[in-house]
Amino acid sequence: MNATLQKMKDYLMAEETWLDLGIVLVKILVILLLTTIVVRVGKSIIKKLFLVRQKSPLGYSERRQNTLEKLLQNILANVVYFTAIIAILSTFGINVVGLLAGAGIVGLAVGFGAQSLVKDIITGFFIIFEDQFAVGDQVQIGTANGIVQEIGLRTTKVKSYTGELHIIPNGTITVVINYSIYNSLALIDVSVSPETNIPALEKNIQEFLKELPSKYEDLVKPPSFLGVQSFDATEIVVRITAETIPTKQAGVARKVRRDLKEFLEQKGFQIS
Amino acid sequence: MNATLQKMKDYLMAEETWLDLGIVLVKILVILLLTTIVVRVGKSIIKKLFLVRQKSPLGYSERRQNTLEKLLQNILANVVYFTAIIAILSTFGINVVGLLAGAGIVGLAVGFGAQSLVKDIITGFFIIFEDQFAVGDQVQIGTANGIVQEIGLRTTKVKSYTGELHIIPNGTITVVINYSIYNSLALIDVSVSPETNIPALEKNIQEFLKELPSKYEDLVKPPSFLGVQSFDATEIVVRITAETIPTKQAGVARKVRRDLKEFLEQKGFQIS
Amino acid sequence: MNATLQKMKDYLMAEETWLDLGIVLVKILVILLLTTIVVRVGKSIIKKLFLVRQKSPLGYSERRQNTLEKLLQNILANVVYFTAIIAILSTFGINVVGLLAGAGIVGLAVGFGAQSLVKDIITGFFIIFEDQFAVGDQVQIGTANGIVQEIGLRTTKVKSYTGELHIIPNGTITVVINYSIYNSLALIDVSVSPETNIPALEKNIQEFLKELPSKYEDLVKPPSFLGVQSFDATEIVVRITAETIPTKQAGVARKVRRDLKEFLEQKGFQIS
Amino acid sequence: MNATLQKMKDYLMAEETWLDLGIVLVKILVILLLTTIVVRVGKSIIKKLFLVRQKSPLGYSERRQNTLEKLLQNILANVVYFTAIIAILSTFGINVVGLLAGAGIVGLAVGFGAQSLVKDIITGFFIIFEDQFAVGDQVQIGTANGIVQEIGLRTTKVKSYTGELHIIPNGTITVVINYSIYNSLALIDVSVSPETNIPALEKNIQEFLKELPSKYEDLVKPPSFLGVQSFDATEIVVRITAETIPTKQAGVARKVRRDLKEFLEQKGFQIS
Amino acid sequence: MNATLQKMKDYLMAEETWLDLGIVLVKILVILLLTTIVVRVGKSIIKKLFLVRQKSPLGYSERRQNTLEKLLQNILANVVYFTAIIAILSTFGINVVGLLAGAGIVGLAVGFGAQSLVKDIITGFFIIFEDQFAVGDQVQIGTANGIVQEIGLRTTKVKSYTGELHIIPNGTITVVINYSIYNSLALIDVSVSPETNIPALEKNIQEFLKELPSKYEDLVKPPSFLGVQSFDATEIVVRITAETIPTKQAGVARKVRRDLKEFLEQKGFQIS
Amino acid sequence: MNATLQKMKDYLMAEETWLDLGIVLVKILVILLLTTIVVRVGKSIIKKLFLVRQKSPLGYSERRQNTLEKLLQNILANVVYFTAIIAILSTFGINVVGLLAGAGIVGLAVGFGAQSLVKDIITGFFIIFEDQFAVGDQVQIGTANGIVQEIGLRTTKVKSYTGELHIIPNGTITVVINYSIYNSLALIDVSVSPETNIPALEKNIQEFLKELPSKYEDLVKPPSFLGVQSFDATEIVVRITAETIPTKQAGVARKVRRDLKEFLEQKGFQIS
Amino acid sequence: MNATLQKMKDYLMAEETWLDLGIVLVKILVILLLTTIVVRVGKSIIKKLFLVRQKSPLGYSERRQNTLEKLLQNILANVVYFTAIIAILSTFGINVVGLLAGAGIVGLAVGFGAQSLVKDIITGFFIIFEDQFAVGDQVQIGTANGIVQEIGLRTTKVKSYTGELHIIPNGTITVVINYSIYNSLALIDVSVSPETNIPALEKNIQEFLKELPSKYEDLVKPPSFLGVQSFDATEIVVRITAETIPTKQAGVARKVRRDLKEFLEQKGFQIS
Repeated sequence: MNATLQKMKDYLMAEETWLDLGIVLVKILVILLLTTIVVRVGKSIIKKLFLVRQKSPLGYSERRQNTLEKLLQNILANVVYFTAIIAILSTFGINVVGLLAGAGIVGLAVGFGAQSLVKDIITGFFIIFEDQFAVGDQVQIGTANGIVQEIGLRTTKVKSYTGELHIIPNGTITVVINYSIYNSLALIDVSVSPETNIPALEKNIQEFLKELPSKYEDLVKPPSFLGVQSFDATEIVVRITAETIPTKQAGVARKVRRDLKEFLEQKGFQIS
Repeated sequence: MNATLQKMKDYLMAEETWLDLGIVLVKILVILLLTTIVVRVGKSIIKKLFLVRQKSPLGYSERRQNTLEKLLQNILANVVYFTAIIAILSTFGINVVGLLAGAGIVGLAVGFGAQSLVKDIITGFFIIFEDQFAVGDQVQIGTANGIVQEIGLRTTKVKSYTGELHIIPNGTITVVINYSIYNSLALIDVSVSPETNIPALEKNIQEFLKELPSKYEDLVKPPSFLGVQSFDATEIVVRITAETIPTKQAGVARKVRRDLKEFLEQKGFQIS
Repeated sequence: MNATLQKMKDYLMAEETWLDLGIVLVKILVILLLTTIVVRVGKSIIKKLFLVRQKSPLGYSERRQNTLEKLLQNILANVVYFTAIIAILSTFGINVVGLLAGAGIVGLAVGFGAQSLVKDIITGFFIIFEDQFAVGDQVQIGTANGIVQEIGLRTTKVKSYTGELHIIPNGTITVVINYSIYNSLALIDVSVSPETNIPALEKNIQEFLKELPSKYEDLVKPPSFLGVQSFDATEIVVRITAETIPTKQAGVARKVRRDLKEFLEQKGFQIS
Repeated sequence: MNATLQKMKDYLMAEETWLDLGIVLVKILVILLLTTIVVRVGKSIIKKLFLVRQKSPLGYSERRQNTLEKLLQNILANVVYFTAIIAILSTFGINVVGLLAGAGIVGLAVGFGAQSLVKDIITGFFIIFEDQFAVGDQVQIGTANGIVQEIGLRTTKVKSYTGELHIIPNGTITVVINYSIYNSLALIDVSVSPETNIPALEKNIQEFLKELPSKYEDLVKPPSFLGVQSFDATEIVVRITAETIPTKQAGVARKVRRDLKEFLEQKGFQIS
Repeated sequence: MNATLQKMKDYLMAEETWLDLGIVLVKILVILLLTTIVVRVGKSIIKKLFLVRQKSPLGYSERRQNTLEKLLQNILANVVYFTAIIAILSTFGINVVGLLAGAGIVGLAVGFGAQSLVKDIITGFFIIFEDQFAVGDQVQIGTANGIVQEIGLRTTKVKSYTGELHIIPNGTITVVINYSIYNSLALIDVSVSPETNIPALEKNIQEFLKELPSKYEDLVKPPSFLGVQSFDATEIVVRITAETIPTKQAGVARKVRRDLKEFLEQKGFQIS
Repeated sequence: MNATLQKMKDYLMAEETWLDLGIVLVKILVILLLTTIVVRVGKSIIKKLFLVRQKSPLGYSERRQNTLEKLLQNILANVVYFTAIIAILSTFGINVVGLLAGAGIVGLAVGFGAQSLVKDIITGFFIIFEDQFAVGDQVQIGTANGIVQEIGLRTTKVKSYTGELHIIPNGTITVVINYSIYNSLALIDVSVSPETNIPALEKNIQEFLKELPSKYEDLVKPPSFLGVQSFDATEIVVRITAETIPTKQAGVARKVRRDLKEFLEQKGFQIS
Repeated sequence: MNATLQKMKDYLMAEETWLDLGIVLVKILVILLLTTIVVRVGKSIIKKLFLVRQKSPLGYSERRQNTLEKLLQNILANVVYFTAIIAILSTFGINVVGLLAGAGIVGLAVGFGAQSLVKDIITGFFIIFEDQFAVGDQVQIGTANGIVQEIGLRTTKVKSYTGELHIIPNGTITVVINYSIYNSLALIDVSVSPETNIPALEKNIQEFLKELPSKYEDLVKPPSFLGVQSFDATEIVVRITAETIPTKQAGVARKVRRDLKEFLEQKGFQIS
């Protein structure tokens, strides 16, 4: 017992102990410094490379180039930080690679625990390969709905309309809804009183709809009058659909709704 | 310490370092260029092959040929991009195949992590083998409802009515609802006042229904009057069913509902 | 670098390259042609075999023979298509069987990824062995409710009342509800005003129910009057149950409800 | 190429090919015939064995004997059908047992895929060992509620009150609710007007409850008056509980409710 | 072909075949007979052992002894039945132990399939070790709420208030709510009209609460008046809490509520 | 057959059989006796060790010492009971350790089945290491909300406000909400009539809030008036927040609400 | 038997037994003492290191330095406590490392059971690498919403607005919503009476909105008037959006809503 304590005391009192500790600390500081420099310089080089993209012989669309720029920055940062961690652990004498290669219980646990990491990276590659979505697209992934900010090796970042940033591990992305590929369709339901003359209403609304595309450029073609959606003793509901350029359906619906209200009141139809 | 820094400095200053880096960059550019050309040319060849499909000796239906065209393009792109990635990693000296073959913790993690990828491909093959759905069909897969745009190796793309593109990993597809195989059935419920003479109502509605198929060609046969669905102190609900060609039930229901309202009001029945 | 490009160019320019490609294409076309012929001829042979089923020495019920006919066609198609895929991959020089037999990371991933495929087939066999349901039965599997169209090796197809085809992987089938085995029971609740004389009402309804089986042949026996289900200040609810032949309860309930309304009004009871 | 086609043609034209095919078909027919006979004869033997059960030296209760009869028939059918499948596959030259014994990717996939099959059988044995429920009991398993029809090796069949047959894989059975072991308790809530004299009401109801067991034999003992469950400005709710023989609580509650309504109206209490 | 049939016929006709079958049947009957006897005798011995528990030197509480009695009976039955199954399978020449020891696909599947069985037993042991609940306690496990009837090796049985028996595999038991360890707390909310004088109400209720423990012995101490829980234009809600002996809170709340109503009406407070 | 029965009879009749059985029973009784004594003595020693904690050189907080006391008692009981089980099984000749060490199907199943046990212990250690919560803290774990009673090796016990004891396996604990670390915030919403003068209301309420901390010591500082939360045609809702010492927010809110009602009525504001 | 008891007695009576026990206890106390000292001293050293951060050559942002400070303290505590546990177990003669290295059933169970531990640590590293969130950010993780207090090796601590501390294992963190990165958007809906003149309302509101940024510094730019969100017979709803600095949207919305109410009433618009 006393021997052990004595040895411990000797160890703590020896000059080399503190010298070693100092060297380790300096090494760590140098590693951190290098890491920071490399990441910053690397990111700005990548940014500049993509500034000349119009002349790029590869002819990738601008949409994909945005994605690649962010991805390359993300890969760079991951590789550098990961290398730094291994280097720091090495200064403490921990041989990470040897640890991982040794098959044993630790290895088993790591193998199972790292599953979702591997799944994140595989899924991430496929999202970019298959061009499921690109930086700047409006998407819905699970409950997150917004504009894609970055597609990284392990996570995708989506900024919602109200400003929250959703950080989503790629491996948890299954069904993706992309609003930016095809034209959108606005649904506009109008309730009129049950005494309304439906054919007259239909004729009036159709004339009104014809003039809309000249007014709103987000409209791809004149909205169409679908017909009576439902009717009961208190109201008749008619439905209009309007094709707009991608993701503009809410704004168009808001404007059409306002104009239509005014128009129907002018024509003497009673809104219920 | 100093020795290490000196070596690092020497490495960074040496001409070969930068020459190597340049060659690597040129190689990557060439690979990307080739990839883009091969995918574009390949896709247009596949497109042309399918333009002559009427004369095809295989006699596949047009529906399946649409599917195969999109699938072949998807397989081509996947194979080419995947090859490109391995080639780029090789220029950095990373031996991907060797890495995968080596059994160890990394291998274990990759094996587990790649499960869902393999499952995607297996399920994708079976969707096409068993002709569960084809490009152009209206389907519901999970919460995604719309027209199939593409069935790929790993994902299926479905475009909804309102324009969103749903990108669904094949492995997450379990129950599929296909609306385009069989005729659809429109359910039309009408509420009348509780004082209504039911037999008279029935007779009138049945006469009205007989004339409908000549008016609407989406109707497969005259709709049938099912009878009283429920009754209480405030209303009697009667149900009509109409068989239509696939996916046209909503439009037919909307038109039948409008005509029926007009007809019942003419005949003096009170709608509640 | 140049050497590699030169080799690539030589390879692309050489006559054999294009000849080989042509032979591969011809082989694939022949395989596809054969596949189509074998599947079509095989399916019609199976169909004819089952046309003579009345004389079949095995004495299987017609219900099971329907199931077997569809199953055999499904097995035939699966086996032929699967063979075709392996043949096509062989023309590209990919040795599928060798790939599967080699144990490694790919093998591990395939083993895990193929789990659900194996589970589909095992569950499918048991569904047919245990006669859980047959082609033509009305069943509910998960949220899919309808008539079974086909029980295949990997999927079961159920057509709903409104015309959608549900394609369900067998492995995801757990609890099955089969409506076609036993007689069904229609529940008919009637609300009368709280001042109603319950014993008189009971006596009247019971007489009314006795005459029903002669009127509706789907009724197995006279419906029975269960009694007062609930009562409060605004209504008394009485319940009637009617045993019908399988799956006919909705139609019978609709007719009994209509007749009962007429009968009670005649007898002077007030429906609330 | 031509050589391959020629070989294929020779094979198809050769007399042995068709003879072999014929023999295979005959073998399959014989196997199917034998299977059918063995299952039918076996099932009727098992049925007869259990007809003499009163004299059985084992003294098992009738409830357990019902279960065993159905179980033995199920085991017999499974064993025979399974043997038949292996025999049929053997006629095609597929060595099932060898396939299963060979450890490889197929084996791995089968091992994983067969998990739920093994789990079904293990759980099934324990259901019968532990006498969790028997054929004829009313149980609730997941969302299925009804009378147990059969407990098999792999599935349990439950027939609901309205006639649907629920087929439940044993492995998915976790919590079982058995209604047939203990006496049931009917809960009867009565709302009276807030001006009611509670002690008088209590005294009257208690007298009324004493006479009930002589009237309804499903009642185990006189129901008890629990007291005021809740009160507010519009009503006072009192609760009565009635112990009945297993599963008869709904019928008893319906009758007690009707009698109680009549009784309270006679005594002049106002039901709200 | 004929040779096979002939061999089969010879086998079926031979006297030894039927003799062997007879011996097997007799063996099975003897095994079943012995099983029944051993289980019955064993269970009654265990019951008698626990009748002398007051003198037991181990000094276990009565609560734990109830649990142990049921557990030992359950273990005995499981061990005996399991032995019987293995013995019966042996009479058919199936070597169960050898089968289990042989590592192969069957072994793999069994290993995976038996997971939940092992988990049941491990969890069961810990429930008893840690005295989570005992026979006679009122518990809530998942959706099952009632009195514990038996804690077995594999399942726990809970009888609900209305008489259903819930049979719960131990492995599915995670969070357990035990109502029988600590005193219970009844929450009694009373709504009074918004014009009420709160301090006067508080003083009156507190006097009323002081006299309650002498009236109801389930009350551990006088209930306490917590104060105003919420108020709006139509009512003021005040809350009273009453500590009772375990599981008696519902009955006490019912009685206190009735007395309080009477008391407040006497004192002239208006209940809303 | 007879030989086997004879051997069995000889075995049952032999004196050694019964002697052995007697010795086994005595051994078990001694083991149970020792177990009970060791656990009781050990627990009281641990209790006494912690009574002198004020002088403890380790300087752990009282909160952590409570946790350690319960934990050590739990570890002691687990170790002793586990040893006893192995000793009892050994008296029956079952070599538990050898069984566990033998790799085979049983081992595989145990390995998988024991996963959740291992996970419980690992998670338990981390809960104590990281001081996530201590005995006496108010926490919410899943749906269980209450005071922590004990943190054991395998389970955590939480007693809810109304007296139920929740027994939670540590492995199922993921997100923990600890109410006892930081001050709590009471939210108090007040609805006033839409005609109210908001600035006057704000000024009055703020004066009222300043005097509160002197009245209620659970209040950390004067509550603050947040402003108008929502308004419509029928009411204006204003919100007040009050910081209190941990877990006292409900009581404070109740008192502030009562005082505020009185204050606003005095000042003539109309509560809606 | 007696021999065993005698040996046990001898062991308990021997002086060395108690001496050994004493030494073990002293060792444990010393270990605990050292652990406490090292953790305290280490944490204060880390705190001091970060006090000089402004001069740090690494140039990390203050936000990241907060995170690193907490992380380093957490790592230190984990490493020291873990070492202490292994040291204490060693004093009892349990060789933990040897136990973990030995592959067997225990190893298998530990490997599986430790999965989630490994997953926690891997995910934790990536949260910090990728700067998903930092100490001080407002985030939503699952159902926990609040300010990040600490990101540790295994858990993240989030303090909610009302004072609860959520302790979340890193491995259960999937989608993270970070409110502190981008500006927030407040949505303010106002209902006016259906007779309102919309263009006049729009003009007035827009003027009102222009003056707001000078009043509230949390507003990044003047809020914008989106238009009519919906209209029916009872109200017209118009929507205003206001961009604010991160996480300030609720407070701004409350103030704008109050001012707008006042403004509209002054201008004579009727709020419904």
